[in-house]
Amino acid sequence: MTALPTTATAPSAFPAQAPAAAPDVLLRCRELVRPALGEAVGRLHPWVAEMAAYSFGWCEVGGAPAAAPGGKGVRQALAVLGAEAAGADGRAGIPAAVAVELVHAFSLLHDDIMDGDATRRRRPAVWKAYGTGPAVLAGDALFALAVETLAAAPGGPEALRLLSAALADLVRGQADDLLFTTRPWGGPQRVTPEEYRRMAEGKTGALLGCAVALGAALGGAPEPVVTALDRAGRRLGIAFQLIDDVLGIWGDPAVTGKPVHGDLRERKKTFPVLAALGSPAARRLPALLDSPGRAAQAAALIEEAGGRTATLAEARAHMDAARALLAKTPLAAGPADELHGLLDHLTSRNL
Amino acid sequence: MTALPTTATAPSAFPAQAPAAAPDVLLRCRELVRPALGEAVGRLHPWVAEMAAYSFGWCEVGGAPAAAPGGKGVRQALAVLGAEAAGADGRAGIPAAVAVELVHAFSLLHDDIMDGDATRRRRPAVWKAYGTGPAVLAGDALFALAVETLAAAPGGPEALRLLSAALADLVRGQADDLLFTTRPWGGPQRVTPEEYRRMAEGKTGALLGCAVALGAALGGAPEPVVTALDRAGRRLGIAFQLIDDVLGIWGDPAVTGKPVHGDLRERKKTFPVLAALGSPAARRLPALLDSPGRAAQAAALIEEAGGRTATLAEARAHMDAARALLAKTPLAAGPADELHGLLDHLTSRNL
Repeated sequence: MTALPTTATAPSAFPAQAPAAAPDVLLRCRELVRPALGEAVGRLHPWVAEMAAYSFGWCEVGGAPAAAPGGKGVRQALAVLGAEAAGADGRAGIPAAVAVELVHAFSLLHDDIMDGDATRRRRPAVWKAYGTGPAVLAGDALFALAVETLAAAPGGPEALRLLSAALADLVRGQADDLLFTTRPWGGPQRVTPEEYRRMAEGKTGALLGCAVALGAALGGAPEPVVTALDRAGRRLGIAFQLIDDVLGIWGDPAVTGKPVHGDLRERKKTFPVLAALGSPAARRLPALLDSPGRAAQAAALIEEAGGRTATLAEARAHMDAARALLAKTPLAAGPADELHGLLDHLTSRNL
Repeated sequence: MTALPTTATAPSAFPAQAPAAAPDVLLRCRELVRPALGEAVGRLHPWVAEMAAYSFGWCEVGGAPAAAPGGKGVRQALAVLGAEAAGADGRAGIPAAVAVELVHAFSLLHDDIMDGDATRRRRPAVWKAYGTGPAVLAGDALFALAVETLAAAPGGPEALRLLSAALADLVRGQADDLLFTTRPWGGPQRVTPEEYRRMAEGKTGALLGCAVALGAALGGAPEPVVTALDRAGRRLGIAFQLIDDVLGIWGDPAVTGKPVHGDLRERKKTFPVLAALGSPAARRLPALLDSPGRAAQAAALIEEAGGRTATLAEARAHMDAARALLAKTPLAAGPADELHGLLDHLTSRNL
């Protein structure tokens, strides 16, 4: 794995090598949560349960065991580590882990419909494999199951308040993201970096923050700890989205599973583009972005105008903020180290 | 208004005239709930809030005040009456009323996408007016807002358990309804009346039951009362769906706002069809149902084979059960009378 470039001013934000433990942490949490997640999905209507299992990477269309691996399970790991960081057994975080994984699956199903994305993890998206109507329904069922799971957990109304606040922010972030596509590259109606940050915090950060906060809340953490972890997770989410933007333009399709320059060809208002548009060097950029087949030139110009560097610096700043929040919060030492290691791992993807 | 035909054996189930009070009860509850519902919708992303307001019949596309009337607000009235029947002020039921109206709006938005229904209350459905992706998003936002509203209400986890159970049943009923379209008219794979009842209880009954039960729960009703009201609401929902089926075949399009014989032309597995298929007189029915342009003949044959009569008798049985449940439950007398009146009103639609 190639490490994310570091700078002299903030060497600690992105260590040269992600801690070896993070993949093991992810695996341990997936194995801890899997029975409860499987049990929850098993309560769904059989047809809907198959779509859910397909979306988790557990089976192919028709129900045969899956050949492709599922997701990493970042959100469930955050929930388990949140409970452990609060001094509880990781099992206390399982209802939170199940709920956030269900919400994540719901949001992927519906986002792929809204964004017209036909592929997810190298397989047809659920709406492509099963149809739009069934995919809408499966998403609704996963959403309802998440609420049901948490309503049945001992966390009480506080846990559901955390989840519902995250859901509201998630939908708001998705609405902003959809509306960004209708805005111009320049002029007073352009998308500002500040609007981007708000969108990314909602679309990606809210659920990551909710995962670790909800795990901590179920683990008995006091309110200031829950709030600090929520904020740290939100910062991680913004960094995560920024790195996704870099990968969406310059990532290796063999690694990302996404088409080369895909985000540019879809004319997405990603941070590298927004940052570059603020530079005089990028005067020709809007024309390139609006010209089909000139994505490679656009990518080069964005890099030349500092869009890539600015995005990585911005990601680093949010990671620093997340780490600072973790550092000043009273957490159990071992799980806190694993949280730090997980943060490094998630932001040191191949670039 | 033409009264629903009554029989000598069950004269009380469908009175010749709905009590004059029911429309006033609906109006009173709408006016009581409207500020809180408007406040909740106002917390949404502005773009999503417009779609929500359009779906409630408050505005046209673009935000201009609506010319068309909105829905009757049956679910919010049930929630308010549930609280009052528990001896509380109707205002105690407002969070329940807001939550169930938001869930109802969410389900209409998504169901219209799944069913491909382009028209809702004589206007373009939200997905037709705003696009499929935005309609998926708006539904999600309404769903999240419902959970958020109830999580912030003083009802505690019990209220959210009621809502999440109803949501799970709602989605399950919708899944069954979608799968019914893939089943044959006859043979071992045919849809049975019992399967229909389960589908209707989920798709229509669960939220009506939840509305009155949730209102009662927020009004401080003991658990057996909450459960009895939930069951009564579910029976009402099945009756409601059965009557909808009769209107979908024999209703006056000028009154129902739906195309004549629409359900037959869409080859829906409605109860009149299922009931008729069980009769030897309906041997030619599958062929008629599969022939475009022969819906009028199919409607006549369904009536001849007893499908209409059987459906009305079935509706009457569920209404009797709902009334019996109300009668044996200790409820405040005035609100209980209004609940009875509302039930009569809802099942004495023009036929």
